[in-house]
Amino acid sequence: MQNYKITIAYDGHDFEGFQTQNRPGSRTVQDELNKAVNILAKKAELEEPIKVIGASRTDSGVHANGQVANFHFPYEMEAYQMSLALNSILPGDISIKKTELVDDDFHARFSGHSKRYYYRVSLDDFINPFKRFYTAHYYWKLDLSKIQIALPDLLGEHDFASFAAAGNQTENTIRTITRADMEFNQKENEIVFTFEGNAFVYNQIRIMVGVLLEIGNNKREVHDILRLFEVKDRQQARFTAPASGLYLDEVFYG
Amino acid sequence: MQNYKITIAYDGHDFEGFQTQNRPGSRTVQDELNKAVNILAKKAELEEPIKVIGASRTDSGVHANGQVANFHFPYEMEAYQMSLALNSILPGDISIKKTELVDDDFHARFSGHSKRYYYRVSLDDFINPFKRFYTAHYYWKLDLSKIQIALPDLLGEHDFASFAAAGNQTENTIRTITRADMEFNQKENEIVFTFEGNAFVYNQIRIMVGVLLEIGNNKREVHDILRLFEVKDRQQARFTAPASGLYLDEVFYG
Repeated sequence: MQNYKITIAYDGHDFEGFQTQNRPGSRTVQDELNKAVNILAKKAELEEPIKVIGASRTDSGVHANGQVANFHFPYEMEAYQMSLALNSILPGDISIKKTELVDDDFHARFSGHSKRYYYRVSLDDFINPFKRFYTAHYYWKLDLSKIQIALPDLLGEHDFASFAAAGNQTENTIRTITRADMEFNQKENEIVFTFEGNAFVYNQIRIMVGVLLEIGNNKREVHDILRLFEVKDRQQARFTAPASGLYLDEVFYG
Repeated sequence: MQNYKITIAYDGHDFEGFQTQNRPGSRTVQDELNKAVNILAKKAELEEPIKVIGASRTDSGVHANGQVANFHFPYEMEAYQMSLALNSILPGDISIKKTELVDDDFHARFSGHSKRYYYRVSLDDFINPFKRFYTAHYYWKLDLSKIQIALPDLLGEHDFASFAAAGNQTENTIRTITRADMEFNQKENEIVFTFEGNAFVYNQIRIMVGVLLEIGNNKREVHDILRLFEVKDRQQARFTAPASGLYLDEVFYG
C-alpha cells in the first residue's frame, strides 16, 4: 500500500463541513473523497474501504484552499495521474490541487505542526452577489487602526476559553498563535485577516474575528482581548463571525 | 411618475439571462426586478404593472457588475432608500449597487452609447472550485504575446458577420470596437480581456475570445482575425467561449 498526501481546495458552501457525519442526508467533503478513492481502487477487492484522513475538521460552510489529507492506496500511481483521476470523479466544488507520494507513517492530522487560515470581510454597503457565500459582510463603521492595535494581543500562548464555542470538546483551551494580521484590499473593498497557530479551539477564529470587528466598531476597548483572556468566559465574546468568510489556507508539516 | 436609473450586479449562474423569457419555469433577472419593483409599488393600484427596462440582454450564465436598468415609479423615494428597499426584496444573486433619479426621457437601452465587458479565463491545471461558475478554464498552452499582437486587429469599425452566433437577429453586423486588451493576473493565474464598443452582435465577445485563445494556442495565424473579417462566415470561428467568464462591467451614457 502506498501512502498518498493530497492538497485539496473546496467551496464549503454546499457541505456540512469536512468530517463525515453520522446523520443521513448530510453531505461532507470527507464522504466525497472516500467515495472517489474507493471508486478508483474498486478492482482491488479490499477487505474494508480505504479511509481518507483529513488534517482539519472544517465546519459547515467553511472553505479550503489548502486542506491536506492522506490515504493508503493498493496500486502505485504517479502523483499527477492520481490528481487527474480523482478530479475526474469528484464533484465541481472539490478539487485536488496536488498529490504527493509520502512515507508510510505520514498522517495528515497528527504530522502537521501548524495551520494558516484567512478570513475575508466585505465592507460593501450592499451584499455583493459574487461574495454572498465567500466572505462575511460588515456594514457598520470600522476604525481599522484600532483593529491593528488589537491584533498583537492575540500573539503567543494564551488560554482561549473565552473564544471557545459551546461545542468545544477539549478541556485544555491553551493555544499558541504565531501570526495575527489584517490587510485592507482596496480594490475588493475587503479586509482579510490571517491567523497561524499550532491548533485552534472550536470556532476560535470566527469568535476572534467577531471580537476584532467589535473593537473596530468601538463596541469594545481596544485591548479588550487581554481582559477576555483573564475572564475565561465564553458569554463575553458574544458574536461569532459567519462561516462563509473562513478559509483553511495551508497546513504545515515538519 | 419618477424615472429611476439603477445599476445592478448579478451572479448569472442561476439565471436564464437578463431578459424575460416566454417559457414557463425560466428564471431571469428582469423577472426578479419587475417583481421587486411592483411589490414596492403595490399600494398604487396601477392599471398595469411597472416594467423595468434593461440596457443589455445578457445571456444565460453571463454575469454583471454594472448592468443598468430604468423604471417609472409612482412615488417619490430617495435614491438610497430605493436601493435599500429593492435589495431587501431581491434574491441574493442580484444586488442594486446604486439608484439615481433621472430625467423622464432616460431609457436604459436607447440612451446608452457604449458598453464595457470583461472576460476571465483561468489557466489553472485543474478547475478551481471557487471559479467553476465565474471564469472560463483553459488548460492548453497559451502564447500570450500572440494574443497581444492579435488584439488591435479587432479595433475600429468592422463587419463582425464571422463573429455572430446562429441566433443573431440583426441584418447589419457592422460594429465598432474602441477597446480590446488583455491583462495577465499572476496572483489569480487568470487572463482578463476587456472589450468596449457601441454594440455587439449575438455572442460576439464569446466568439472573439474563442478565436483569441486559438491564436494563443497556435491553432490560428496571429492575424487570422483580419481573414475572418473578410470571409464573413460564422463556420470559421468555431469555438464559443463559455458564458461563465463574461461580465457586463459598465454601460456608458452621454
